[in-house]
Amino acid sequence: MDRREFGRTLAAGALLSSVKRLGAFQNQAGRRLRYCIVGLGRISMDHFMPACKRSRKSQVTAFVTGHRDKGERLAPEYNVPLKNIYSYENFDAIAENPEIDAVYIALPNSMHAEYTVRAAKAGKHVLCEKPMATSMKDSQAMIAACRSANRKLMIAYRCQYEPVNLHAIQLIRDGSLGTIQAIESANGFNERAGEWRLDKKLAGGGPLMDVGIYSLNACRYLTAEEPVKLEGFCTVVDNDGRFTTVEENCGWTMHFPSGAVASCNTTYGASMPGFIRVHGSKGILEMEPAFSYTGIHLKANIKGQPPIEQSVNYDDKEQFLVEADYFADCVFNNKEPKTNGEEGLRDMRYMAEIYRSAGRSLD
Amino acid sequence: MDRREFGRTLAAGALLSSVKRLGAFQNQAGRRLRYCIVGLGRISMDHFMPACKRSRKSQVTAFVTGHRDKGERLAPEYNVPLKNIYSYENFDAIAENPEIDAVYIALPNSMHAEYTVRAAKAGKHVLCEKPMATSMKDSQAMIAACRSANRKLMIAYRCQYEPVNLHAIQLIRDGSLGTIQAIESANGFNERAGEWRLDKKLAGGGPLMDVGIYSLNACRYLTAEEPVKLEGFCTVVDNDGRFTTVEENCGWTMHFPSGAVASCNTTYGASMPGFIRVHGSKGILEMEPAFSYTGIHLKANIKGQPPIEQSVNYDDKEQFLVEADYFADCVFNNKEPKTNGEEGLRDMRYMAEIYRSAGRSLD
Repeated sequence: MDRREFGRTLAAGALLSSVKRLGAFQNQAGRRLRYCIVGLGRISMDHFMPACKRSRKSQVTAFVTGHRDKGERLAPEYNVPLKNIYSYENFDAIAENPEIDAVYIALPNSMHAEYTVRAAKAGKHVLCEKPMATSMKDSQAMIAACRSANRKLMIAYRCQYEPVNLHAIQLIRDGSLGTIQAIESANGFNERAGEWRLDKKLAGGGPLMDVGIYSLNACRYLTAEEPVKLEGFCTVVDNDGRFTTVEENCGWTMHFPSGAVASCNTTYGASMPGFIRVHGSKGILEMEPAFSYTGIHLKANIKGQPPIEQSVNYDDKEQFLVEADYFADCVFNNKEPKTNGEEGLRDMRYMAEIYRSAGRSLD
Repeated sequence: MDRREFGRTLAAGALLSSVKRLGAFQNQAGRRLRYCIVGLGRISMDHFMPACKRSRKSQVTAFVTGHRDKGERLAPEYNVPLKNIYSYENFDAIAENPEIDAVYIALPNSMHAEYTVRAAKAGKHVLCEKPMATSMKDSQAMIAACRSANRKLMIAYRCQYEPVNLHAIQLIRDGSLGTIQAIESANGFNERAGEWRLDKKLAGGGPLMDVGIYSLNACRYLTAEEPVKLEGFCTVVDNDGRFTTVEENCGWTMHFPSGAVASCNTTYGASMPGFIRVHGSKGILEMEPAFSYTGIHLKANIKGQPPIEQSVNYDDKEQFLVEADYFADCVFNNKEPKTNGEEGLRDMRYMAEIYRSAGRSLD
């Protein structure tokens, strides 16, 4: 126990004789879900972990990193005891650590399955970044592992917990927009050479897997429908060495059971801020930006109603806070997350279908 | 010759001893192309004909209408002599009328081919509204008829002559936007029951043929590429009797030889103001509205350049004026129109491919 941790334990006072006791106590009176962060990349360090700092339901109590020095530098900020810094090799030892309730997996996509399964076997709940994996088979294994360990599995579909997106859902669900006819959406960015996202082995696929998935998922949560047919094209424009294993661009169209159609694009070769536009028989709803960490903006023009415009003035941590806390609620109240493994698997299936129609394959 | 025409001829003065002489004279010194308007619908009466009024290269000298009374009411405004009002039955008599150089065909789509062929046989040039026809076969017949009569055939792709669209083309062509990766576009509207557009026999197809064609055509003129593959879905959401023969919605994706992808939507079931957004490696260009008679607005954000924003302050006649006059130039200078029959036929082929992929057919 280092000095910081000693001080922390001291401050907790005489009530607490063991970490196990602490857990039990917090469970009764405002316990926080104790996350082990798996992967100290940008999304963890800049967003998820700082979000937990301001949470009353979520906290960071451990790290898994390939760079112990990085973990040690970060530990004091989160009051993470050095003993709670794990490597990928000794990861399974989290099983013995009662200060960890759940893992937050923010690794390259190809590692999601392995660490989800290992975490479940270690008795921990799993919040895993999207896309849930790089194959359907892996996704199914993740679901099975969490189910057999009786642990929760949630895929971090941030936007399904974001208030502006939720408002859009509500405006469609309550019939304000009428019957939904057509949706356009795009989401992409210009990826730098050398990033793991450009390596199919690590990423599973290109921009469709990483950012196109936002459009795909949004078309589904906005319509509350599952596409019955998907067709797409995957292409490379820039022969600059970046796109030897994954697509640079993907354009696809979806057909929903109601008859609604959605046409979407994604790219790693151009700036493409996320947007989505929904055309209903009674009006148009659009979000732009639609999927970003901050600044999500909704406009709706509905027949016979004054124009609707909504932004929520939150910073880049807020969506992660809501997400982390939602999962904490699921764990504490034994509630199935709405973006559970099955939800993640659906997108995997649809992406596989888009890739297949484009002459590529998932995995 | 009615009183108005008499006065007009009188005013032309002693130089003119015959209508034929008038034509010859104007050809040398600022002659105007004399259009016979075929079909007195909204687009003719509200846009094309008023545009000719302010032109120094185009004028309306004859009508073809199924409602002679309508023609007679309109005649004075355009100094059209009553003898120059034709019906669909005596249409072929335009061959004998030297006051007609060209026809402007603004009929339901299924009639484009017949009246183009008859006009060509009558020795008249043809400016025909889009879509050029309702089948590939008809389109080919139109091209053949005009070619064998040595008459010009232009399809009225208004936006290919519109200054904001031309600016967009230029920004792409000069490389400002870098390599083009992806395009999103949509164009549609909520069609009223009872319109001829909802009858496949008259329209050939649904919104794809009528308004989706703007997105399709724009993707082609912006990229200067021809799609190599197209995939789409055609659907009906509203079972309210409107969509018994044509689709209500169509979503489709295109793959261009460079690798650029385009994903588009069209509808007759919702408001869907035309927009197009082009993602290049160096920036984003968008037009919204993109295809309307007025108010077309361009925004471009290009790396290392100040933001570009452009609107042109013209009214709803201006684009028709430019189009009518461009065709006049083609006729007078024996120039092939850039939106000739072959250009129209290409869109027909692509729409046929979209329909085919969607389990429908053109014609």
